[in-house]
Formats: sequence, C-alpha cells, structure tokens
Amino acid sequence: MTLPAESIIVRSRKAASPMANRETPFIFNEWYVAAFASDIGRDLMPRTLLGKRVVLFRTLDGTAVAMDDRCVHRSFPLSRSTLEGDTIVCNYHGFRYDARGDLIQVPSQKACPQGIGIRTYPLLEKGPLLWIWMGDAERADESLLPDQPWTRADDWRCTRDYFLHPGNYVSMHENLLDLTHLSFLHANTIGTPDFAPAPYKLGLKEGHYSLVRSVIPTRLPEVWSRSTGIHGDTAARIITSEFLSPALHRVGGRYYDTALPEHSRPTFHIFTAHILTPETRNSMHYHIIHGRDFALDDEALGQAMHTGLIAAFQEDVEGLGALERVLDSADEQHYEISVASDAPAAAMRVHLKRRAELEQQRLGA
Amino acid sequence: MTLPAESIIVRSRKAASPMANRETPFIFNEWYVAAFASDIGRDLMPRTLLGKRVVLFRTLDGTAVAMDDRCVHRSFPLSRSTLEGDTIVCNYHGFRYDARGDLIQVPSQKACPQGIGIRTYPLLEKGPLLWIWMGDAERADESLLPDQPWTRADDWRCTRDYFLHPGNYVSMHENLLDLTHLSFLHANTIGTPDFAPAPYKLGLKEGHYSLVRSVIPTRLPEVWSRSTGIHGDTAARIITSEFLSPALHRVGGRYYDTALPEHSRPTFHIFTAHILTPETRNSMHYHIIHGRDFALDDEALGQAMHTGLIAAFQEDVEGLGALERVLDSADEQHYEISVASDAPAAAMRVHLKRRAELEQQRLGA
Amino acid sequence: MTLPAESIIVRSRKAASPMANRETPFIFNEWYVAAFASDIGRDLMPRTLLGKRVVLFRTLDGTAVAMDDRCVHRSFPLSRSTLEGDTIVCNYHGFRYDARGDLIQVPSQKACPQGIGIRTYPLLEKGPLLWIWMGDAERADESLLPDQPWTRADDWRCTRDYFLHPGNYVSMHENLLDLTHLSFLHANTIGTPDFAPAPYKLGLKEGHYSLVRSVIPTRLPEVWSRSTGIHGDTAARIITSEFLSPALHRVGGRYYDTALPEHSRPTFHIFTAHILTPETRNSMHYHIIHGRDFALDDEALGQAMHTGLIAAFQEDVEGLGALERVLDSADEQHYEISVASDAPAAAMRVHLKRRAELEQQRLGA
Repeated sequence: MTLPAESIIVRSRKAASPMANRETPFIFNEWYVAAFASDIGRDLMPRTLLGKRVVLFRTLDGTAVAMDDRCVHRSFPLSRSTLEGDTIVCNYHGFRYDARGDLIQVPSQKACPQGIGIRTYPLLEKGPLLWIWMGDAERADESLLPDQPWTRADDWRCTRDYFLHPGNYVSMHENLLDLTHLSFLHANTIGTPDFAPAPYKLGLKEGHYSLVRSVIPTRLPEVWSRSTGIHGDTAARIITSEFLSPALHRVGGRYYDTALPEHSRPTFHIFTAHILTPETRNSMHYHIIHGRDFALDDEALGQAMHTGLIAAFQEDVEGLGALERVLDSADEQHYEISVASDAPAAAMRVHLKRRAELEQQRLGA
Repeated sequence: MTLPAESIIVRSRKAASPMANRETPFIFNEWYVAAFASDIGRDLMPRTLLGKRVVLFRTLDGTAVAMDDRCVHRSFPLSRSTLEGDTIVCNYHGFRYDARGDLIQVPSQKACPQGIGIRTYPLLEKGPLLWIWMGDAERADESLLPDQPWTRADDWRCTRDYFLHPGNYVSMHENLLDLTHLSFLHANTIGTPDFAPAPYKLGLKEGHYSLVRSVIPTRLPEVWSRSTGIHGDTAARIITSEFLSPALHRVGGRYYDTALPEHSRPTFHIFTAHILTPETRNSMHYHIIHGRDFALDDEALGQAMHTGLIAAFQEDVEGLGALERVLDSADEQHYEISVASDAPAAAMRVHLKRRAELEQQRLGA
Repeated sequence: MTLPAESIIVRSRKAASPMANRETPFIFNEWYVAAFASDIGRDLMPRTLLGKRVVLFRTLDGTAVAMDDRCVHRSFPLSRSTLEGDTIVCNYHGFRYDARGDLIQVPSQKACPQGIGIRTYPLLEKGPLLWIWMGDAERADESLLPDQPWTRADDWRCTRDYFLHPGNYVSMHENLLDLTHLSFLHANTIGTPDFAPAPYKLGLKEGHYSLVRSVIPTRLPEVWSRSTGIHGDTAARIITSEFLSPALHRVGGRYYDTALPEHSRPTFHIFTAHILTPETRNSMHYHIIHGRDFALDDEALGQAMHTGLIAAFQEDVEGLGALERVLDSADEQHYEISVASDAPAAAMRVHLKRRAELEQQRLGA
C-alpha cells in the first residue's frame, strides 16, 4: 500500500496522545536507583540522573551522599574536586561543603556566608541498590520504595550488570511489558518461536501493569534448559512481566517439567529486576539484578545463566538504540499502531504521562 | 574595501531571494535515483532519501521494492529485520509485511488487523539505475523520467561511481551549470587555464537550463588527450552542461582535432550523468555514470578515463564540502553576488524554489 | 540542605542579571589579538574570531592582511584558495581580489564588476602580536590598543604559548581576576595554601579592574623559588591581576626575600599577558606571553619557568572546559552566589555586558 487510510492514522494518533513517550517530562517524585551500592565509595562519582548532574560518594562512616554536581559559586563540577573527611572542597576556589551540602568555608575570607548550600537528595540503601529521590524531599517516603527483598534473600542467588542504554526509559518499559519480542529480537538467545503466539493474561491495575504468558508445553532455549535440566519438549515456561514503578520492572519466570507428576516435580524460579533510571530523554542507566531460587551453590551455573541473559539484553540495547535513531528522524507524519498485547504497555504509558503532567502542574502552580 | 556598498548588498539579497538554497524544502514529485540497480538485492538496504528513511530490497522474482524503514507498530527499523521470501518480518515483535507493504501477520494474536501497512514508493528500473518517486504516487508517471538511453546503449561504454557528498544538492547543480571552475578547482586534473575565459552560450528554457562552452583551439588536459589521442594545441573542446531535472545533470563533451580536415576528422563524445539525490539538507547521494562512444573495447583506457574523472570529482566533493561549512556559519549579513555566467544556475534555482513552494502550498491546502 | 532559601536564589539571580556571561554578544569595537605576528606569512591561514571566519596572510612586502574568509560570489573559503603575489584567487571560479579586498578579475568575463569586494579588517602589528579590529573600521583608533611594551622591551625576556581553549572568554577573565584558585586548581603547580586567605586590595575603576594580593611571608612554589633563588619561608609574593580590556588581562608578580635588608634586596618581576580572543560563545583563542626582568640571558631558566607556568594553564584549560560542560546543561533553575573577592570580576562583567548592549543598540538603531 502507499499509505494506511487516513482514518487509521488519525485514530492511532488519538490513541497515542495520552501516552508517555520520550518527550514526556520525567517523573521526579519517585525512587530511582542511582547506582549499585557497591559502586559508591570514597571517590566522587559523577552521574546524570533525570537530566541533572549529581555527584555521589560515601562519608567516612559509610553513609552515601548525593548532591548537585556543581559548586554554587561558579558552577565548577564537584566531581572534579576533593573529598576531605566528610567535606567536599571545590577544586576551583576552595569552597567547602559538609555532607549535608551546607557551605562551611570560603577560603578567601574569614566569615562564611550563612544559609548557602548545595541541594542534596534523599537516598535509601537496600541490599545491593542505592535509591535516590530527585523530587520534593518531603515526599520521599520509604514506604513508596518498590523494594525487592529477593535480591538480598538467603534462599536466592543473584548476579548483576549495568548498561548505559542509548534509548529512553519509556521504550524500555514497553519492551519489557510485552515479551512477544523474545521470539524475534532474542530468537538466538532466550526466545523460541512458540513464545509469541502463546496465550497470555493481562493485568491493568492503576500503577501496576502486567502480562503473564504461559508457554506449555515448550522446549526451553538452551540457557534455561541447561540451568533447569529440563531438556525435552515437555517444559512449562510461565513468564510474568510486571511494571512496578517508573524505575522498576520485574520479569519472573516459572519453569517445570510437565512430564513429571505434578505433586513431586521441582519448580524453578528465575527473576530479573530491570532497573531503569533516565539519564537524558534519549538515554538510560540500566541496572540489572538476575536471580534464581535453585542451585544456590553452583556458581558456574549462575555465571552461565548470567552470560546467556546479558547476551539477550545486549540485543535489546542495540535494537532499542537503533529504534531511538528512527525516532530521532520522526516528522509530523509519525504514527504508531497498537495491538491487543500492547494493552498493559499502553495503560502504563498513560499512567506515566498523567503523573508527569500532574507534577508539571504543581510546579507551575 | 571594508564592505561593498549597502546598495550592492541589498540588490544581491533581492536577486537571491527567489532562488532555492539549502533551506528550500525538497521537491518530492520527481524521479530520483535511489541506488544503482546492482546495489539492491536480497539484503535489506537502508538509505535516507529526501530526508526519509527507506529500506530497499528485491523480491524473489527480482522486483525492486522501497518502503519506509520503520515498522508501524513501534518504529523498529525494518532494515535490521528479516527478509523471508517476499515478506519482511520485523525483528522486534514479528509483524510481517508483504512486498506491497501490507501487514499480513501479527504473531501475538490470531487475527491480523486489516488496512494497516507501510508506505511503499513507486520504483522504475532503467538499465543501471533504480529510480524512486517519493511524492504523490498517482503522479509517478514514467514519461517524466529523465531517461538517459546512452547509459545502456550498445555503442557506448560506461563506468560508474558513487560519493556520499557532504553538501546540498542545489549547490552541486550550480557547480555543474557553470564549469568556469574547471580552470581553478580542477586546475590539476581536468581543467586548463583557457577554459574559464572561453566563449559560451546560455540556454534558459523553463526546466531545462544549459551552458555550452567552446574552447577552440586548446590543448587538452592529459586525461582527455591520452584517451582521444589529440595531443597538440589544435584540439576543440565543446562542453555542454545541462540541468535535466532536480535529480539529474548531464555534462556532454565533444572533442576533435582542428588540424585535421573537417569532413574526415573523428569526433569523440564523452558524457557524464551527475545524478543527485538529496539525503539531508546538507548531504547528497552522488551517483555518477561516465561514458564514451569510442574505443569501446579498450577497457584499460576506460578505466584510466574513469580514474582521471573521479580525481576531479573528489575535488568537487572536498571543495563543496568546505563551502558547506562556510554556509553553516552564515549569519544574517550573508549575501552572494552573481555574474553573467551564473544566469542558467540562477534560473535553475528560481525554478527549484518555485516547484518546492508549489508543492508546499498543495500540502497546506 | 535540600536547597538554599528561595530569597537567596532570587537575590543571586538579580545580582547576576546585569553581568556578562557566555550568552552575551561579543564586543566588536575593540582590539583583539588575531594571532602571533610570527604565525602569519605567505600561507592563507583561516581563523574564526568573534564568531566570524577570517583569513590571514602577508603581502609580498610583509604587510599583514585580514579579510572575511569567503568569496562574495558563491561563499567558497578563500583560505582554501591561492595567494598570487598580493592577490587571492578564489579556488572555485577564479575571482581575484587584491589585498584591499577589492574584486579585480572575474575570469569568465572581460569586464570586472565594480564596487564589489570582501570586507577587510584593520590590523596593528606590535612586537609579537597582531591585533585586529572587528568592529566599525572608523573607530579603529591605535590609541585604544592595550599595548604591552614590556613584551618587546630590551630589559625583559619573554616566551609565548597558545591554547585553543574550550570555554568562553568571560569565564577566563573572571578566573584571572580572582587568583584565590591558585591554592586549589593549581595546588600542585603554582599555588600554595596561604595564597587564598592572604589579604588583598580591590581596584574598581570603570574599564580597569584589579585585585592585588600580598602573600608575605610565604614559601614560593618550586617553579618560582627555583627561578628567583628565594627558597625559604621568608619570600614576599605580591600578585596584581588586572583586566585591561575585553582582549587582555595582565598578571604581574613581584617577588623578594623579606629576610634581606629592604634597601639592598633584589626584586623579581614576572608578568603574564593573558590574551583572550573569543572564537565562539564556548571557545577562545588563548595567547600567552610570559616575561621576566631578570636572568635575561639564562635561557634554560626561562624555559623552566615557561614549562611550569604552562602546566598550570593546562589546569585552567581543563578545569574551565569542565565548568563549561556544566553550564551546557544549566536549566532555568541555575544560579551562582558571589563573595567579597568577586567584586572586581562582577564589576568587569557588568562593564562587558553594558558595552555589548550599547553596541547592539547602535546596530539596531
């Protein structure tokens, strides 16, 4: 065809208009992962989070600190400055800040101006993750944390990884909420042809969107058949994609062998936390925690699972990076068409846009 | 001088205002060369044409196909997808399109939505060239093709080449319509000092602009004296520059030896098709077909002519690329002054701008 | 703190609003250094000065010439053209200009259009420096030159250097007017800890801003103790920072040993001309002349001083380059807070902005 009917394009655009995309402002009143806890220490680490330059470090007692990466005097980056005890000394004119961000010394004069300081951000450290709240500090409530106790539980074993992903975070959430793409983008790694057409159930609760796909029976891709020992065509693979917050998506896999008696067969759980922190409109810090509840002591197996999974995620990074370049050149004629399995992703995008707009309205008020 | 008189600058700007430049919108209702026919096969080839990302391939029966390089679902580039028979399967969620661009399968569901598809573009294959029509499909009339039968004629021999040229296509048309520059930009390749001051005739028919320069007698540059065997100061060199369409310029050379009797001396024709396809405002696909009507079987001579010519075109690519960087930094005080030999180029630029504006008006209507 | 009080931010922004920053238009009616005199010869040298592309060369009799680096015909860069005697021949269509910028030949026609030419700029050569006036030519008064006779005096010895600095020139002026930063940015090269808190005097005359810091007694940094021979804790180091024009800042150092009797101790003078020529809003040609009035014949000592100083200036270039990247990402919430020693820099920035605005008003009138 030369073009879809104008009526279809109009309908598609109308459907997309309440959905978040890469132009939508970030949602600030939310916990995001700033870094793996183990990445932060006594070096001043710069990182751009939600479009803002932040410097991260730990005080002598190990407390993590995050503050704007810029001296309030002449905007010199504090990440190029010096950590002395629990204070940062700007490497330009020596302005000294304590770990609360308060200015406590101006070397060129005896008196230090009062009430001056750098914005610091609430942090929460939970197991391997360091969470940051970039919005209104008084709303930074620990109860809002999408905590993942399994990432630090004794009966789980986890590995981790990180990508600086060259695409926006909304597209990655959408990627994760419909794993149809396992059969195509990941055909050579973690996908099988029967994954895409398998039956699924949707979850559309406000702020919590999910899609559960049951591929029964199936033959597992090599990385999972090797780790679970289910090698035949009788495997069950039940995958739950869950949007838990703008910062977090969890994919939970349940595997068993349908050839074994139901009451005695083992069930294998493989979870992945996809931790998404916008860097800019077109890039994202992508932290990954990958865990299993079996073969806890088999480190070689854990490493093989990790390697297999990361090979697949590399495909996401490259594919969504290429997609982002297409969006770069989108003109006013751009449109996208959705299908049934996009329902959770569409609802999620409407949710993100509504929250972003509410924040913007409050800022404007 | 510190500056030309204000009156001269005002007059120059007024003269330039109806002329196309790199800011002028592209002309879409026109045949452009998408690629050499031999460049397209069973690989999915991405190419940006007139600012639009297109993917090119051939079906199993060899028919060339061009369509927008983006799945209508989530904008994944089809050029990173899979060609299966005569269908493209998007490498993200597996949407399958036939060679007409119609969506024929959505793997995550049984029913395929109807009336959905990707925009495809009319193509015409003529000898070595694959032409594309990026405008209104119903206007894609083969009779509008600026066909060049000599490029595939038995009594001609042709070679070809390609540059991704870092400048806009209007400047290249202008470059070709006044070959005065042979004496300067190409002084060491295909130019001689007597070329610039030689007498010329202008052709200013609407949509067809030309300049014929007769350098008689002259000594040919080495590349042409070697190929024609005219080594003395008695050569005739008659060069016709012709704008044939926004996509095509032909330079035709006629050479003979004035020392020989008119009725018996041989005449040598050397033609070059300069095929200009805008990629972006500041870049251009530059396809070249270079032919001769003599020494048809002397492949070594053909190769030497080609090498000599491409050395000159490399000078155009570098020179006009440098000029483009000057235009990048042009401010509101920018002006250009024209001389007599610019008349065809000026008329051509007025023609291009008028056509572009007419198309824009129709789009707006 | 999470943020300074809104009242402090409002006050800071109000204080900054009359101050020049990197968004402020350039000041054109002023002498700037185009190049070291020795850099200009019979090659056509391109250089962007105050956002304009200029080409520099010398005529056969050695006179320096600066003109716009663009043929008035089709904007080809003259710096890619040919210098023939005292004329430039454009390498595109052969337009020939004399050293006054007047068009004197158009090869494709017999008659040369009259009154056409390229803008040339007044130049002044003084010792090692070639100064250019980019503004109204009739205002180019030699008496306005911030001449530095010591740079060519017999009783001084000077070395020079050049950086293409990746930051704006206002920030560099500010950097130089408060050398507090010697104790921090240059802690390992030319700074000592007692420099920042040492007493200082301000000079706030309109158009001439200064800060004199007296560090007495002190221990000199190695580069200066070695060159002056003052190795103990009894040195006097008196540093005068002077803004002399938008194009020039001079730092003058006076050194002596307080342990010696006042009437007989030697005094050492070390001067540095920091010569700032904006290239773009975010970059600057940074010419440096560094001189001493002692050990005139000790070339090794001169070289060691030069090496030590340039190591420090490399720190400025890197530090201010990093600061510029912070400013790149500044949003509408950006603010900066000043302290007492910023007074000359603040007055200087107000002066620059006022001059820029006056020029803009005159242009608009």
